[in-house]
Amino acid sequence: MSQTKVLFLNCTLKKSTAEKKSHTQRLIDIVANEMSELGAETKTIRVVDHTIPFGIHTLIKDAPKDDWPMIHDEILKCDVLVIASPIWFGTRASVTQLVLERISGMYEERDAQTGQYPLYNKVGACIVTGNEDGAHDVIANTLYNLTHMGATIPPNADCYWLGEAGPGPSFGDDEATLKNAFTNRTARYLAENTIQAAQILQANPYKINLDKIDNAVNEMLGNTHKHVRE
Amino acid sequence: MSQTKVLFLNCTLKKSTAEKKSHTQRLIDIVANEMSELGAETKTIRVVDHTIPFGIHTLIKDAPKDDWPMIHDEILKCDVLVIASPIWFGTRASVTQLVLERISGMYEERDAQTGQYPLYNKVGACIVTGNEDGAHDVIANTLYNLTHMGATIPPNADCYWLGEAGPGPSFGDDEATLKNAFTNRTARYLAENTIQAAQILQANPYKINLDKIDNAVNEMLGNTHKHVRE
Amino acid sequence: MSQTKVLFLNCTLKKSTAEKKSHTQRLIDIVANEMSELGAETKTIRVVDHTIPFGIHTLIKDAPKDDWPMIHDEILKCDVLVIASPIWFGTRASVTQLVLERISGMYEERDAQTGQYPLYNKVGACIVTGNEDGAHDVIANTLYNLTHMGATIPPNADCYWLGEAGPGPSFGDDEATLKNAFTNRTARYLAENTIQAAQILQANPYKINLDKIDNAVNEMLGNTHKHVRE
Amino acid sequence: MSQTKVLFLNCTLKKSTAEKKSHTQRLIDIVANEMSELGAETKTIRVVDHTIPFGIHTLIKDAPKDDWPMIHDEILKCDVLVIASPIWFGTRASVTQLVLERISGMYEERDAQTGQYPLYNKVGACIVTGNEDGAHDVIANTLYNLTHMGATIPPNADCYWLGEAGPGPSFGDDEATLKNAFTNRTARYLAENTIQAAQILQANPYKINLDKIDNAVNEMLGNTHKHVRE
Repeated sequence: MSQTKVLFLNCTLKKSTAEKKSHTQRLIDIVANEMSELGAETKTIRVVDHTIPFGIHTLIKDAPKDDWPMIHDEILKCDVLVIASPIWFGTRASVTQLVLERISGMYEERDAQTGQYPLYNKVGACIVTGNEDGAHDVIANTLYNLTHMGATIPPNADCYWLGEAGPGPSFGDDEATLKNAFTNRTARYLAENTIQAAQILQANPYKINLDKIDNAVNEMLGNTHKHVRE
Repeated sequence: MSQTKVLFLNCTLKKSTAEKKSHTQRLIDIVANEMSELGAETKTIRVVDHTIPFGIHTLIKDAPKDDWPMIHDEILKCDVLVIASPIWFGTRASVTQLVLERISGMYEERDAQTGQYPLYNKVGACIVTGNEDGAHDVIANTLYNLTHMGATIPPNADCYWLGEAGPGPSFGDDEATLKNAFTNRTARYLAENTIQAAQILQANPYKINLDKIDNAVNEMLGNTHKHVRE
Repeated sequence: MSQTKVLFLNCTLKKSTAEKKSHTQRLIDIVANEMSELGAETKTIRVVDHTIPFGIHTLIKDAPKDDWPMIHDEILKCDVLVIASPIWFGTRASVTQLVLERISGMYEERDAQTGQYPLYNKVGACIVTGNEDGAHDVIANTLYNLTHMGATIPPNADCYWLGEAGPGPSFGDDEATLKNAFTNRTARYLAENTIQAAQILQANPYKINLDKIDNAVNEMLGNTHKHVRE
Repeated sequence: MSQTKVLFLNCTLKKSTAEKKSHTQRLIDIVANEMSELGAETKTIRVVDHTIPFGIHTLIKDAPKDDWPMIHDEILKCDVLVIASPIWFGTRASVTQLVLERISGMYEERDAQTGQYPLYNKVGACIVTGNEDGAHDVIANTLYNLTHMGATIPPNADCYWLGEAGPGPSFGDDEATLKNAFTNRTARYLAENTIQAAQILQANPYKINLDKIDNAVNEMLGNTHKHVRE
């Protein structure tokens, strides 16, 4: 069995050149370290370091520069895709939403033989850090979006850290945040479950043919033309 | 390989004795029919026909009557759990939320050997009907909740129907609603993916030991006591 | 100016007879106390102590018992309506959702002269307690729902308490939770803003005629019949 | 009474130079036209035409260019702020989230005398267009965010258009979409309610002093230092 490849997309608003560290990266590091110990190969892309124009296609043709196709290709190569997002104003960061919008360009890239979406037989997961509230909303939406691109979500495929209600420290600002037992446990649940799920799917891929279903439905509904993807 | 068992929990607000049909049941029927053709055994429980007190445990001891343990046991027997929900005021129905609250009682029922939650190696899915808006919110939250109980979410594990913005017909009120190509396609995606995922997991169950992780984390954090589940 | 009337609907899952106290009531008490000092008359209904069948109308005719009409009438009498909700599994409690579903029956109760919805010139607010996450989601959905019934949402019309990520104490379980500065500040913001907004609206009610708008739109769209409310 | 000023922030992903029209602008036009007839002065900024770096402050100092301060000043000048957003993948567009993140910089700009947030005595509203689902989620989060900056949300302060479940036309793609009775009615509800609320608040501003509350809470909690804004 080949080595499991994990791609983290860190959707922090802060560039690597910023003064402050990315709190989200701190939690990625914990998960990635655990995955390495399990034998996986991990890679993190800090999205905001690249030029990613707004849009809903894999390539934004009228943009002066578009680094997304590079990230798109890294996604295609990975077995486990982990979206790592800060929370701002209670919902997922603009960079995370931008990433999902660009990922939605994959709707147009179904497999020629099976009609499967590009994340079929890949595994999705989500990591979130915030000050105080919003993790469930961010994770629920993000994991759900990934299933539409074909990802499988294994059990306990998320982890997050949040402080008490109101302003306060962020993850990694002090030792106490780093010692949250729930966050540390779930970080390891995520690591083990995603790696194991990726191995299961590598050995036992989905054989479903979506094109065949589409054609059968079109026929049933009396559509006179053969399968046209919308 | 044994026959795949599918359990639908229909979370409509309407009892079976109500004048009007459950629109949600109409969409369940389409999915269940497809699953039967794929060889699965399906069963639907209309939750509101039973006496389910509010609470967050498997048995509400101070309630005069509690039918939840029966549903709880059906959940334990199934391979695929499908939560079917109407939308009210943009979010999941009160009955759906009640069902999830009662399901959360399973947090206390981890496996004695592995610490796995009761839905490990089961598959989760979600069906939604509404007039006009809210499907993503309902499905995202519901699928995410199920992963915390151990469920795996396969690709394209949801289907829904909604009409145009504003008041209008519900699913099944007229022929046009039943002929929505997207709803019909995704109903079949859901059926095939969940059955296939259940078969994959039956043959290749997760071997992860959550208790072992908990103990390792506790030790790392310097907790002096042995694993105590919170 | 007449005394401002405030109605709190406590949507805890626990009946008054339960062993444990309602954490949500603890936060209601702080807000209600502040409002009393500002001269308002406050009243709290613990919804789960009453028999409230599922449904989306003001009276559920085929239910053996329905206490909602009593609560409905209390809502009509108040100037400020505060929905107080626990969080379960990241979203608003089933009892809260049930309350909103029953409130949605007011869609059918527009004013005979103006077509205004029953909460016009009333003020809406939201209080939330939970263990660790979900306050924004609960509050956002709840306040938005209330605006559709006619409520005005003043600035800083919400307050909540949540602990750090993962299991832990609930509001009022220990002194530390009660001393959260953010929760205490925003509880008072809520109290002052809602009372002041209610006084402003009492003296300066909305004069908008929704029926007139509906008729104009129908005419513009070429609908041959006079205003029919959907 | 001075003329009511309305600012629309169109958060479409498409620049003005794009081939396709902004569907969101189509719905803005309907609302703005109605507001003009009511005597208001309206202005629309298409956010994506400007250079707005990611961040959570009013000025991003380490960005090569930041046009946000111009938009920030337009927000300060308006009486009614309308966030207009497309839906992508079920939630608010990345540009909308970016706008809210930048607006959150106003947390640091409380009034020197009253501690009020910059949107106090301004009115908030939300317009949404999408293919098929997600309006409630976008609007609920967006209106709620605005109340934290001080905005008041009047009754029926939102309007949206969505088609049936699945791929299909967007708002303005054909005549049928433009003729949705619900969207047309609520567009006018929004226009009349926001203008009327702005006039009410202009004549009767909130007099609440948040700084005084903060100091009282700090004293009560035994904080030894005078008010420190967090």
